[in-house]
Amino acid sequence: MKTFQLPKLVITDIDGVWTDGGMYYTAQGDVMKRFSVKDGWGVIFLQQLAIPLAIFTGENSEIVTRRAEKLKIEHCYTGVSDKYTQACTLCRELGITLSEVAAIGDDLNDLRLLRAVGYSGAPANAADYIKQEVDFITRAQGGNGAFREFVESILDNQRLIRKIVESYY
Amino acid sequence: MKTFQLPKLVITDIDGVWTDGGMYYTAQGDVMKRFSVKDGWGVIFLQQLAIPLAIFTGENSEIVTRRAEKLKIEHCYTGVSDKYTQACTLCRELGITLSEVAAIGDDLNDLRLLRAVGYSGAPANAADYIKQEVDFITRAQGGNGAFREFVESILDNQRLIRKIVESYY
Amino acid sequence: MKTFQLPKLVITDIDGVWTDGGMYYTAQGDVMKRFSVKDGWGVIFLQQLAIPLAIFTGENSEIVTRRAEKLKIEHCYTGVSDKYTQACTLCRELGITLSEVAAIGDDLNDLRLLRAVGYSGAPANAADYIKQEVDFITRAQGGNGAFREFVESILDNQRLIRKIVESYY
Amino acid sequence: MKTFQLPKLVITDIDGVWTDGGMYYTAQGDVMKRFSVKDGWGVIFLQQLAIPLAIFTGENSEIVTRRAEKLKIEHCYTGVSDKYTQACTLCRELGITLSEVAAIGDDLNDLRLLRAVGYSGAPANAADYIKQEVDFITRAQGGNGAFREFVESILDNQRLIRKIVESYY
Repeated sequence: MKTFQLPKLVITDIDGVWTDGGMYYTAQGDVMKRFSVKDGWGVIFLQQLAIPLAIFTGENSEIVTRRAEKLKIEHCYTGVSDKYTQACTLCRELGITLSEVAAIGDDLNDLRLLRAVGYSGAPANAADYIKQEVDFITRAQGGNGAFREFVESILDNQRLIRKIVESYY
Repeated sequence: MKTFQLPKLVITDIDGVWTDGGMYYTAQGDVMKRFSVKDGWGVIFLQQLAIPLAIFTGENSEIVTRRAEKLKIEHCYTGVSDKYTQACTLCRELGITLSEVAAIGDDLNDLRLLRAVGYSGAPANAADYIKQEVDFITRAQGGNGAFREFVESILDNQRLIRKIVESYY
Repeated sequence: MKTFQLPKLVITDIDGVWTDGGMYYTAQGDVMKRFSVKDGWGVIFLQQLAIPLAIFTGENSEIVTRRAEKLKIEHCYTGVSDKYTQACTLCRELGITLSEVAAIGDDLNDLRLLRAVGYSGAPANAADYIKQEVDFITRAQGGNGAFREFVESILDNQRLIRKIVESYY
Repeated sequence: MKTFQLPKLVITDIDGVWTDGGMYYTAQGDVMKRFSVKDGWGVIFLQQLAIPLAIFTGENSEIVTRRAEKLKIEHCYTGVSDKYTQACTLCRELGITLSEVAAIGDDLNDLRLLRAVGYSGAPANAADYIKQEVDFITRAQGGNGAFREFVESILDNQRLIRKIVESYY
């Protein structure tokens, strides 16, 4: 495993990472997504360490905004057509570089960003040509704790995870 | 397997135990959960033995209340921030001790309670650091009969399950 | 495999057989079930052979009624508390015996019926104490074509399935 | 693997291919389907190569129409009772032959079409008697990227997939 300082920013894709890629359609269109309670813990871990988290999704979806609100995630960008450029802009605002960013994604529109950041991840069921390009592949599938496992891979690297678990004893 | 008298109270988590951790969001927020018909049988088994059952969930959800009503579960606590303290309060009310309680949960906010009770369980897909702390790990995943299997593990220990099955012949 | 004439009636459970046992709750209660398009073919196969099909479910659900209407199933009984007695009544109406019935179910409230009929089945993920009592266990799980596979097991026994497939060439 | 020129038309089934066969019913009937974000990429790949795509579904569903609109799919035929005849009509309109068509389906109502086209596919979990008749069986199950994998099997044959991936670097 790549050594990597704690990141100054974590960026996450939604569909296929926080979900299993499922888009639930009714006669009204794309109305529902299934998130996992497990990933909520990944968000809490980052908040405990005061590491900012940003959602970047290509979709233009109120659904994602609701999930971000529930988990008190400050940076939630929907309808992002170019994630790499969006990340450069956000890094500039935060006064950091892409090498200080950790990012997880599962598909082609994540690829340029994943190749540019300091530490990258993808869920077990991402496309092969994405998995070949990342530092860490989660055992969990998208929508079943892949994001949490990615966060834990960062913390574990730093032996922080044991400390967090013991705080719940 | 640990020997354990029939418990005087069973406490169960919901998300990740009675569900697969899925939280179905629409533009209106977290609106739906998927429960399993199989777990309803676990509730019936406890009712046949007159063992009280309590739901403890950190979420503040009407959805859980509806499921509890359907299954005629008396003790349904939602929005519980500290499950251990809540369990101590309930035990006091019922005049029992934590060592007479069986509890199942799958994540960090269940951990202190799981370590304190007489008999503890977790679903197959719980976090590893939870599974290391419990007496019984179900073969079933959360949302696919894990709660029922936990109840059966209690009954089986007492050779009661065969009697119940035969009552349905 | 047991030899068995073509049945004069097929009886099927719903939750756990036509579904994976999932009950989707909102703040309004139990509002949704997931059926499989695959099982629709099982219904069509029976209709092509003019074998009557009856749904017996313990739940009192409009949802099941809608699915039965879509598939033009004549006998749809919801809220059935005693499936064995209900089957006896229906057999009397149809002038047949339980030994001429094929039935599939997955749990304790199906058990007495499954033990009484001429040919019985259960999905791969039924409770062990159900699977021990039936003639045929499907490879498919409930909600993923278990009912269709049960119907095919009846037809295959009769070498009818190949004829049906070839009619679609 | 069969050698095959790039098709002049791709035809796809919906239930069981773009979905896992799940039909979500409420008291109002069949109201929801789960699509996969992964298959959206299959549509994009075809659009980049200017290969027309047609949806043929036996169901008469607004839900499918919404998904087709979202992905800007021109040819969306719902309520198709005879897919083979429908394909002949569409080929005539486009001035092509069935041997220039690639098609994916998973069940009996797809069979005649699948046997007639130049290149045919089915998802991993299609019925056995369908899988025996097709050129390519996807590793993915229906609703989890089976359509995208089918499209990639066409492109890969043409070494186009690597070029597309690299355009996202």
